[in-house]
Amino acid sequence: MICTGCQKEYPLERIFPRCDDCLEPLEVKIGSSKVFIKDQVYFSKNIVNHYHSFYSFTEINESLSLKEGFTPLIKSNSLSQLLGLDSLYIKNETVNPTWSFKDRGTFTALQHALNIGCSFIGTLSSGNMAVSVAAYGARAGIKTIILVSSDLPQEKLNPILIYEPILIKVEGDYGQIYYESLKIGRELGIYFLNSDIPFRVEGSKSIAFELCEQLNYSVPDYVIIPTSSGGNARGILKGFLEFYEQNLITKLPKIIAVQLEGCAPIYQAWIHKKDRISAVDNPHAIDNAIANPFPPSGNELLRKLREYDGLVTIVSDQEALQGQLMLAKEGIFSQPAAAVSVAAIQKLRRERVISEKSCCVALVTGSGLKYGGILERHKFHLFTSQLEDLQKTIISKLSS
Amino acid sequence: MICTGCQKEYPLERIFPRCDDCLEPLEVKIGSSKVFIKDQVYFSKNIVNHYHSFYSFTEINESLSLKEGFTPLIKSNSLSQLLGLDSLYIKNETVNPTWSFKDRGTFTALQHALNIGCSFIGTLSSGNMAVSVAAYGARAGIKTIILVSSDLPQEKLNPILIYEPILIKVEGDYGQIYYESLKIGRELGIYFLNSDIPFRVEGSKSIAFELCEQLNYSVPDYVIIPTSSGGNARGILKGFLEFYEQNLITKLPKIIAVQLEGCAPIYQAWIHKKDRISAVDNPHAIDNAIANPFPPSGNELLRKLREYDGLVTIVSDQEALQGQLMLAKEGIFSQPAAAVSVAAIQKLRRERVISEKSCCVALVTGSGLKYGGILERHKFHLFTSQLEDLQKTIISKLSS
Repeated sequence: MICTGCQKEYPLERIFPRCDDCLEPLEVKIGSSKVFIKDQVYFSKNIVNHYHSFYSFTEINESLSLKEGFTPLIKSNSLSQLLGLDSLYIKNETVNPTWSFKDRGTFTALQHALNIGCSFIGTLSSGNMAVSVAAYGARAGIKTIILVSSDLPQEKLNPILIYEPILIKVEGDYGQIYYESLKIGRELGIYFLNSDIPFRVEGSKSIAFELCEQLNYSVPDYVIIPTSSGGNARGILKGFLEFYEQNLITKLPKIIAVQLEGCAPIYQAWIHKKDRISAVDNPHAIDNAIANPFPPSGNELLRKLREYDGLVTIVSDQEALQGQLMLAKEGIFSQPAAAVSVAAIQKLRRERVISEKSCCVALVTGSGLKYGGILERHKFHLFTSQLEDLQKTIISKLSS
Repeated sequence: MICTGCQKEYPLERIFPRCDDCLEPLEVKIGSSKVFIKDQVYFSKNIVNHYHSFYSFTEINESLSLKEGFTPLIKSNSLSQLLGLDSLYIKNETVNPTWSFKDRGTFTALQHALNIGCSFIGTLSSGNMAVSVAAYGARAGIKTIILVSSDLPQEKLNPILIYEPILIKVEGDYGQIYYESLKIGRELGIYFLNSDIPFRVEGSKSIAFELCEQLNYSVPDYVIIPTSSGGNARGILKGFLEFYEQNLITKLPKIIAVQLEGCAPIYQAWIHKKDRISAVDNPHAIDNAIANPFPPSGNELLRKLREYDGLVTIVSDQEALQGQLMLAKEGIFSQPAAAVSVAAIQKLRRERVISEKSCCVALVTGSGLKYGGILERHKFHLFTSQLEDLQKTIISKLSS
């Protein structure tokens, strides 16, 4: 290293990052004989052109992509040990363009909307999907209608409103608004990108494709998915099925759909061996991103999970909060709704449904920044110090 | 498409996403003759092994990576027209693992800390860097000391505390704490990953490398960088210089460092042709992520920008807020500190410093979710409707 001020040289092993003489910052010098071998430009793709064999668009407008998808698969360092699991991966959907998995389906559904000639788009959502649709609608420069529940507070509306959509608070039952919006969409030619529409499911299937590639086509035993409307879990299973049918993989993973116990209509139908879900009358869940009381793809998900040997489970609000802390140990800050996947693994390990030798992939669907207020439910340690006592304070905290 | 419930078939061009008969969701079927050509697995790298010729680590612990970097370069759709610019790209650093550019330098500096045998890491920060260091420290499983100003509110502390670092609120002057932390680090063997240390700058240089790759080695005329401590701008210029020295690029871009007018020590020294910055006595800026009153790499950045024909400019708080709205039109929600880059382009176009024919890259350094509270400063439109009036409401909003 050399000093940027006086050019004095220092060894690379030095911890103090500034010059002893002039206090200016140091800088690393690399040898001049090193040459970079140009590598593939792997930034330029979007999920639809990368997996084009599995998509059926008449045309793709690539300029509408925000480079959704291609999210990291993070191998667990410490959490797998805590859970007593040989192999745990975290599929980190929090680094999508609007920080949730929704962007995949928004991109694919938007393409379909344009393919069939719709000039307007819309959605009904209480959070992640509204943000995503508003963002892509703004980028496409088309009028975008966002419907939200009338009780959503302003702080949850602002991250949607920044994209300046037509935002309408609707008074009425959420399940009714879902179907009413589709009806209005049909009549007025507005493409409503709701939670489980076919071309949103097409976006979600790219999660399965990527997992196969990232695991070098070795299929995990379990893929654990936070589940609200059921659309995302449907898409992921569909993706594995499509790769399986093309002999790109030799088996299917077991899909585990996870709900919160305060709003678990799919789980209730699952354990009572019913074919159809019933609406939850009085939902109370810590994070409304996973609290759809009448999931529009609930019945279909029940069918598919039974056919392909999947599973539905629940965790409590408290377990979801614990899941947040578990993921943070791996460096990933998720919203509570997204942390139910690792919470479910812990529960299913305890119940010996998942064995120690299993390979699990936990899907983390959205960023913890989406719902900062909930962090007040955690009890964190916090210290204070005067500047002159700082060294003493640090020594005491490091040794305790 | 077929109905997932009754298998009835529907054309792909349909807008209504559910079955007319049983109301169950539809699903897209792809033809069976399509085969996926396995492509490169381009998810597996980190910036250090991808650009290994330009790094000097004795060893790399890849398991500590959260897949920082490799962020999208988004070509502007509408904003370039608004700004009267032939070509505008946005380098979107908001999709890093902790949603700011800081993760690049945290990863490289952490590797250096381990290379030289430090068992503890730390940082001094009021936001993005604290979050990033806490996350990577948690993932590495090493004790991590985060120093913050004593006046930081709890809501800004919680996204740091989720990773459970040793967090200490320090009473005292921020500039003094910076140097004191480095001194304590040297004495106790704690590697402080502060804003402009050499191996954090090494992380930032990967932004330049990626820009070269993403633009197919055609160098932009301007790279516009929100600037607080000066470390990131230093790193980006260093990256371009290293590629230039290896003949990978044939010219250098002009680097434009942008500060907020309420805290602009580098700009003040720049316009008054001084060699050294002076501390700002009474900083008042809309977003403290860009409000370092005494930037530790200020002098060095002045030297480098003069040597390589760069520029320093300022924008107002109000212009930063307008920048947020401009970026949102492209689908990107940035924090105000990050939106100063596009705000500066608008200003420099108005002043005819940047010409219409130029190719500009605006760096967007951190997510808008980092600072949701500021959105109250915007005036957004918002509508309400009863469910039974929804169609009428939508029609009126679409036509207005």
